[in-house]
Formats: sequence, structure tokens, C-alpha cells
Amino acid sequence: MGKVVCAGLGPGDPELMSVKSDRAIRGASHVAYFRKKGRAGQARAIVNGMLRDDVTEYPMEYPVTTELRFDSPEYRDQMVAFYAEWADKLAALAAEHDVVVLCEGDPFFYGSFMHLHTRLQGRAEVEVLPAIPGMVGCWNALDTPFTWGDDVMTVLMGTLPEDELLAHMQRADALVVMKTGRNLPAVRRALTGAGRIDDAWLVEKGTMPQQRVAKLAEVADEDCPYFAIVLVHGQGRRPEAPE
Amino acid sequence: MGKVVCAGLGPGDPELMSVKSDRAIRGASHVAYFRKKGRAGQARAIVNGMLRDDVTEYPMEYPVTTELRFDSPEYRDQMVAFYAEWADKLAALAAEHDVVVLCEGDPFFYGSFMHLHTRLQGRAEVEVLPAIPGMVGCWNALDTPFTWGDDVMTVLMGTLPEDELLAHMQRADALVVMKTGRNLPAVRRALTGAGRIDDAWLVEKGTMPQQRVAKLAEVADEDCPYFAIVLVHGQGRRPEAPE
Repeated sequence: MGKVVCAGLGPGDPELMSVKSDRAIRGASHVAYFRKKGRAGQARAIVNGMLRDDVTEYPMEYPVTTELRFDSPEYRDQMVAFYAEWADKLAALAAEHDVVVLCEGDPFFYGSFMHLHTRLQGRAEVEVLPAIPGMVGCWNALDTPFTWGDDVMTVLMGTLPEDELLAHMQRADALVVMKTGRNLPAVRRALTGAGRIDDAWLVEKGTMPQQRVAKLAEVADEDCPYFAIVLVHGQGRRPEAPE
Repeated sequence: MGKVVCAGLGPGDPELMSVKSDRAIRGASHVAYFRKKGRAGQARAIVNGMLRDDVTEYPMEYPVTTELRFDSPEYRDQMVAFYAEWADKLAALAAEHDVVVLCEGDPFFYGSFMHLHTRLQGRAEVEVLPAIPGMVGCWNALDTPFTWGDDVMTVLMGTLPEDELLAHMQRADALVVMKTGRNLPAVRRALTGAGRIDDAWLVEKGTMPQQRVAKLAEVADEDCPYFAIVLVHGQGRRPEAPE
């Protein structure tokens, strides 16, 4: 009897994964990971050179990417079938031996693994290894403290309605916006409305060799991949600040 | 010429620090860490058994703890002098060799190191190693996905005015409240006002052997240490959820 171990990979630099994840991945005989059809997959790329020679790999290929709207019944049906299929396969594998599932960032923070986690309950032992979320790697790339004192930090998805984005941006000190990409124009308008646009950064592939950091005001709307993260630093209460 | 390396320690389990921090700490000849006067210090406790036999240790003892109000001029003056003194000492040490500063959680996320980071600019090379924030360790302790789909997550300090706490709690999906302790009654009233009290958890020492997890509704007001974290899970958009 084995178990399903979901190993959080962190923001992208393999040296930033935990000692525990590192050990689980290097020792694994069976490794599964999500990827888009026809791609090598970002999770698999992060562990390049770490896997055993005799490892068996299970690429879990998303059935759809951008052909269907996220909120369409067709998308939903295909994703439900996809997760159900892989939950079955992982439960069957775990009946024989441990299987390690690779997950970018922290698995419980907007991670795809949650859809398997839910479905595996009662069918296999599941262990989740936490990791540094992608946003933490991104603010580290800016080499400046992100939150101070009593700052309020809010994490938003760029897919939210613009008025909701604006309301949160007006109220919080430090801001993180994920799922930007084609939503960048709305994110930009909301940041402008909240008076925060000049303090906003765009970070892509934080902690990775291809890391890119830019002032958001200088980024073209069409030049923003889905996984880039927008960051606005907090400037909160700082009783101990220098004069 | 050396540098100041701030090694993020993560939530508390030494195996959850990054491979990079682990290596920096095990190899360090000079190690500094914050602690309260008369205490061993939580950061130092996490690296127990990891340090070289010939290491030189620099406990940075906070000059005040609870005797002074955070917003009093006396507190501010003493903290400013304290950080200035240690910035001087670390800059002097780094002129000779590397010095590793231990920091719980992620250094740029509400970390005390920021006060040294600011003061060391232009005086020493500084490298910050990111880590798993304490809140991530705490939600991992609950073994359930914390944010889903388009959830809005807000991080609040229990020290904020109650009406501000309430306004944020009404608007966000997933909630993290840090710096609870004596602020718990106000946090509890705000959560009740926002209709979230029955979904709130209190996690203390997440990922550590003394880890404690409780429904907040069942915790007495006086039974909440300052570093315990309150968590409310998001229940956001889940297009891929099972029927």
C-alpha cells in the first residue's frame, strides 16, 4: 500500500522547493504532473535532472486549453471527466506504491491538485507537501519587503469583474493580481482608478532564469502572459522605520 | 568581502525550508537571529542541530517586548536604535565574511528583517532567500485547499480597527488573520458580523510538533497566543468541481 504525495514545487527555481519535496521527488519511482497538450509542461521542466533513471512518468494532459470558455458546460464536463479519470488512475497506482504528483507553487493555493485531492478522499492516503507560492517568488524578484506592519494584503484574480477589482484595490495596501493575461486592460483600469498604477509591477517567471520584471505602466496590453503576476507593495504602518 | 544572507526559515518544520536556505544555514560560519530577551528564540530553535560546531552566533535581542505600546515614541526610539545598531554590526561582519540572518516565514512578508534590509542598502551586499510563509504552513495543517478558482484572499492583522476588519471580511472569500492574541475578541466579533465565524479555524505552530488546530468558535478569548493564525477557507468559483 502506497500513497499519493503531492509535492509542491514552489515558484520555479528548483533550489527553492522544500527539503521534503526535493527528497520525495528525487526518490520517486512514479511521478505524475499536469501539462497542456503538446507541451513539455512547466512542472516537469522544474524537476529536470532530478528524477530517477528508472522513473515511470504520468503526464496528465488537460483535455482543453483555450478552445472553450471556462464557464461553458462543455468545458466543465470535459474537466470533470478528466479529473475523475486521473483520480481513478492515481488511486489504483497508490494501491501498489507511492506516486508523487508535481504541483507548481503551493498545492492548496489556487492549485489544480485540489480537484484530485477532493476526489481521492477515502480512496487513497494523500499527503500534501507545502511550497513557496508563486507570488512569493515574484515579490522576492523585486528585492523589496512586500508587506509591513499592519498592511492589508489582498490577492485578486484578473478574471474578476472590473468593479470588484477596483473596490478591493481601493481598500487594500499590498496587492497581488494573478491570472492577468488577456485581463490586463481591466486590471490596469482598476489600478488606475484606485490610484495605484504607478506603483504596480509585472513579474513573469519569478526566480526562474527567464525572469522578467517591469513597471506595469510600461507594459503593453498584449504583452502579458496568463501566468504573469501584478504586484503593488504595501506601505503600511512602520513604527520602527528610520527617520 | 562577504554578504548578508537572510535565510527564510518557513513555517517551522525544518524540512520545509528551501534547499537553498538549508544549504546556507548548514554552511554558515556566522549566524544572527532575532529573539526576545531571555528566550532561546523561535528562529534559533528551528535550526537546532543544523549549525556547524564552530559557528559564531549573534542573538539580536529585542530591547522591548510588551512593556511599551507599539505606537509610543519610547518604543519607536528604542526599536530604531536597535535596528541601527544591528545594521552597523552586520555591515561590519559582512566586510569580512558571509553572515546568515535567520528569519521565520518569508522575510519579505511582514518580516522583521525588512528593517535591517532597508538600513543595509549601499552598505553591504544583501541576498534574501524566500521561504514558505507561516500562513501557508497553517493552511496546510488543515489539509484542505485554501483558495479555489476566482476566490479573493485577504490577509489582515488583528491589530486593525474592528470596523476595518469587518469591511474586509465581508468582501473577501478566503481570510487570514495574523497578530491575533489579545485582539481575538475584536477579530471574533468582526467574523461574526461578516457571517464567517463558524467557518473560522485557529492554527498555532502550524507544521511544528506542538501544532494545534481548533475551530475558532471553540477557543476561549484568553487562549490565543499572538502568533496563532485565524483562517477561513475560500469557497469560490469551481467550474471543475464534482457534481
